[in-house]
Amino acid sequence: MMKASIISVGTELLFGQITNTNTVYLSEQLQLLGVDVMYHYTVGDNPERLRRIIGLAYEDCDLVITTGGLGPTQDDLTKEILTEVLDDRLVTDMASLDAIEGFFKQVGRPMTENNRKQAYLPSRAVIFQNTQGTAPGFALENDGKLAICLPGPPREMTTMFEKDARPFLESKSHGLIYYKMLRTFGLGESALETAIEDLINAQTDPTLATYAKEGECSLRIASKRATAEEARTAVCEMERAVFERIGSYVYSDNNEELAQVTARRLIEGNIGFSCAESCTGGMFAAAMTDIPGISAVFDRGFVTYSNRAKTEELGVSEEILKKYGAVSKECALAMARGLSERTGSRLAVSVTGIAGPDGGTPEKPVGLVYIACVFDGKEYCKELRMPSMNRYRNRKHVVLYMLSAILRITDAASE
Amino acid sequence: MMKASIISVGTELLFGQITNTNTVYLSEQLQLLGVDVMYHYTVGDNPERLRRIIGLAYEDCDLVITTGGLGPTQDDLTKEILTEVLDDRLVTDMASLDAIEGFFKQVGRPMTENNRKQAYLPSRAVIFQNTQGTAPGFALENDGKLAICLPGPPREMTTMFEKDARPFLESKSHGLIYYKMLRTFGLGESALETAIEDLINAQTDPTLATYAKEGECSLRIASKRATAEEARTAVCEMERAVFERIGSYVYSDNNEELAQVTARRLIEGNIGFSCAESCTGGMFAAAMTDIPGISAVFDRGFVTYSNRAKTEELGVSEEILKKYGAVSKECALAMARGLSERTGSRLAVSVTGIAGPDGGTPEKPVGLVYIACVFDGKEYCKELRMPSMNRYRNRKHVVLYMLSAILRITDAASE
Repeated sequence: MMKASIISVGTELLFGQITNTNTVYLSEQLQLLGVDVMYHYTVGDNPERLRRIIGLAYEDCDLVITTGGLGPTQDDLTKEILTEVLDDRLVTDMASLDAIEGFFKQVGRPMTENNRKQAYLPSRAVIFQNTQGTAPGFALENDGKLAICLPGPPREMTTMFEKDARPFLESKSHGLIYYKMLRTFGLGESALETAIEDLINAQTDPTLATYAKEGECSLRIASKRATAEEARTAVCEMERAVFERIGSYVYSDNNEELAQVTARRLIEGNIGFSCAESCTGGMFAAAMTDIPGISAVFDRGFVTYSNRAKTEELGVSEEILKKYGAVSKECALAMARGLSERTGSRLAVSVTGIAGPDGGTPEKPVGLVYIACVFDGKEYCKELRMPSMNRYRNRKHVVLYMLSAILRITDAASE
Repeated sequence: MMKASIISVGTELLFGQITNTNTVYLSEQLQLLGVDVMYHYTVGDNPERLRRIIGLAYEDCDLVITTGGLGPTQDDLTKEILTEVLDDRLVTDMASLDAIEGFFKQVGRPMTENNRKQAYLPSRAVIFQNTQGTAPGFALENDGKLAICLPGPPREMTTMFEKDARPFLESKSHGLIYYKMLRTFGLGESALETAIEDLINAQTDPTLATYAKEGECSLRIASKRATAEEARTAVCEMERAVFERIGSYVYSDNNEELAQVTARRLIEGNIGFSCAESCTGGMFAAAMTDIPGISAVFDRGFVTYSNRAKTEELGVSEEILKKYGAVSKECALAMARGLSERTGSRLAVSVTGIAGPDGGTPEKPVGLVYIACVFDGKEYCKELRMPSMNRYRNRKHVVLYMLSAILRITDAASE
C-alpha cells in the first residue's frame, strides 16, 4: 500500500488568508485509490523550509503530492526543489511551451519572459498539461520515491488530478479498498464505541473508526483486499455485525446528511408538511429548504416567537400558555394541532423550548425542549434536555432531533 | 517574535472527511498577535507519528498549537504525548472533573469511565475550561518550549481560543500589537483594494490587509509599537484615512458579524419586527434568533414557500401572483405590506427570489431576488442579481443583503 504525504506550498496559507481545500480533496481521492495518507504539511514559499519538508515527507512515505509553488514568479520553487531531490534536471518541454504561448494568445495577454519558466520541467517526468491555467504539473520517480506535482489554484488542481494524476496513480496502486460510512444519530461517540468495543478491539481488516460530529456520530468500515469484490464482501459482513448492535441509530449507510435523508423521505413519499418553530427560530425550515426540490412538499413555516404569535397564528389558547407555559408538552402539541388544521398539511411539526443563554428556571432549565408532530392524524411529542452549552449549538442539535423524529414517525407509518 | 507550528490531530482529516477550518482560523489569529506561523502539520491518531511531528515542530519553532485528539476515546493521545515531550505528568484536575460530571448530569446521559480521562491534565499546565464541550485544553511550558493544546470541534476550539488562549498568548507576546478589524459589506475585495490602494502601497506600520469572506470583505489595520498607546494611535489615524474612502461600507470596526450589529440596532432602538421569507426559507429568521435577547423585539416570521401560503398568510393577491409572478418587486412589496398589516410590527421585512439550482428562466434567472421593507409606514424594495453559483451560498448572501438593508433603513430613520 502506497504511503503518501500531501505538501501544500504557499505563504498565504500560513497567513490564514485562504482555507486549504486542495488537501481535503486530495485526501479523499487518495483514500478511494487505497493510498494511505500519513501527513499533511503546509509550508511557505521558502526554499530551505520546503526542502526540509520534502525530505521529512520521504522519510516514511513513498509518494509525495505537492500543490502550489508552480507559478511564474521568483518564489515559486516547488518544481526546482523536487527535481533536485529526485535527482533530475530541468529542460524546456516544447509541448508545454506551445501550450503556454497558446494560452496567452487566447486570453489576449502578452506572455512575459518569466512565463517561459513554467515550461522548464524535469527531463524524466510524465508531464500533465494544465487545461485551466498555465503551469503544467508532472509525475517524477526516482528509486522508490514518487512525486506528483500539481498547481495551487483549486480548479487547475482538481481538473489536472482527474485528467492525469488519478489515472497515473491507478496504474500504480496495489490492492483495492472499499469502505462505507454509516451515519448515526442519538448515540454519543463513547456510547457508540462501547456498543461495538469488541468489534473495534478485534479489528484487523475491515477496520472500524468512529468520528464525532456536532450532535452526530459516524462510523467508517473499510477493507483492503486483492479484489474489490472481496473488500465489499468483508465490509458488508462487518456492517451486519454493527447493525445488530446499533442498527436503530443508523440513518444513512452512504454518508448522507440527516436533512438530506429526511427530505428524500418526504419528497419520495409525497408527504406535504409545514412547521411551527419557537426556539429554533427558523433553523428547521432553513435546513429543509436548503434541499433542492423540497418545494414540491414544503407548504409553509411559522416562526412563532412571541406568545401572541403562537395564539394568533396557531390558535394556541391563552389557557394553555397560562396553565402550562409556552415551553410545555401541551403547548408543543397545541402548536402542531393548530398548524395541521390551519395548513391541512399531512405532516405538521412544531418545536418550543428554551435556547438560552437566559430564560431558564429550576423547573424549566435552559435546554428544555418539546418537539411535537401530527402525521396522518396521529400525534407524537418528545421532551429533550439539551446541555445548555451554547445557544447556536443547542438550536442546531434540536433541528437534528426534529429531523430524526420525522424519519422515525414516517417510517413507522410506512410499515 | 514567536515562531509557531500548528498541528492538527485526527485521522478523519487525513481521510479528507472534513475540511480543516481550525488551521485557517488559528493562522489568522496568530498573525494578528504578531506570531510567525512557519508550518501546518496534520497527523492521524497515531502515537509514534504524533510524537515525531511534535518533535519536528519544536526543531525550529518555540510555540506549538495542537487541535484535536483530546476526546474520551482510546485513540485520543495528544495530551499524553505533549505532556511527555514537555516533561510533565498527568494528574486529575478536580475542577475539570466536576465540569465534566456536571455536563453529563445536565444532558442526562450516563458518564462513561473513559470520560474521566478528559480530566487528567499536566500538573504544571494552565487549564482552559471547555464551555462548549467536555475536553479541557491547556497551555504548558518547558525550557523555552510552549504548547497550547485545544479541542478539535471548531466551536469548542474558537471559543476556548478567544476566552483563554489568546489572552495567554498576548501576555507572552513581545512588543505591543494593536489592531482593528473593519467589516464591510457591499464592496468586492478588488474594489476595496482599489479604493485604498495608495494606503496599501505606502504601508509600513500600521499594516493593512484585506480578507474576502462570503459576501463580505474585512480590513485589518495592525500596528506594533513600543507601547500599546502608540500602536493604538497609529491604528486610529489609519482608520480615519480608510473611513474617508470607504466609510459608508463599514458596518463594524470591531470584527462583529452583520447579524450581530443589525440585531443590536433593533434591540437598542426597541424596533419590533417580523419577517416573511420565500427563497431564504427561514435563514433570515434563524440568523436573527441566533442572537440572544432578540425575543424582546422579534414578533414572528413566516416562511411562505408556496403561493397559497403567500396568499393565505400575507394576503398577496392572486392577481399579483398571476400578473407579475411570485418573484417580482410587486410580490415582495405585497408580502411586506401584508406582513406589516397582519402583525402591526414597526418593521416588516420580506424576500422572494429564485435560489436555484432550477426554476430559472431567461427573464427571471436563478439568483434574481427582491427584498422589501415597510418601516414606520415607509416602503423600500431592492432587486438583487446573485451569481447563480450555489443554492446555499446564494441564500446566505441574500440574508446579508436583508441585514444590510435593515441597517441602512433604520439608520436613515434615526437621522
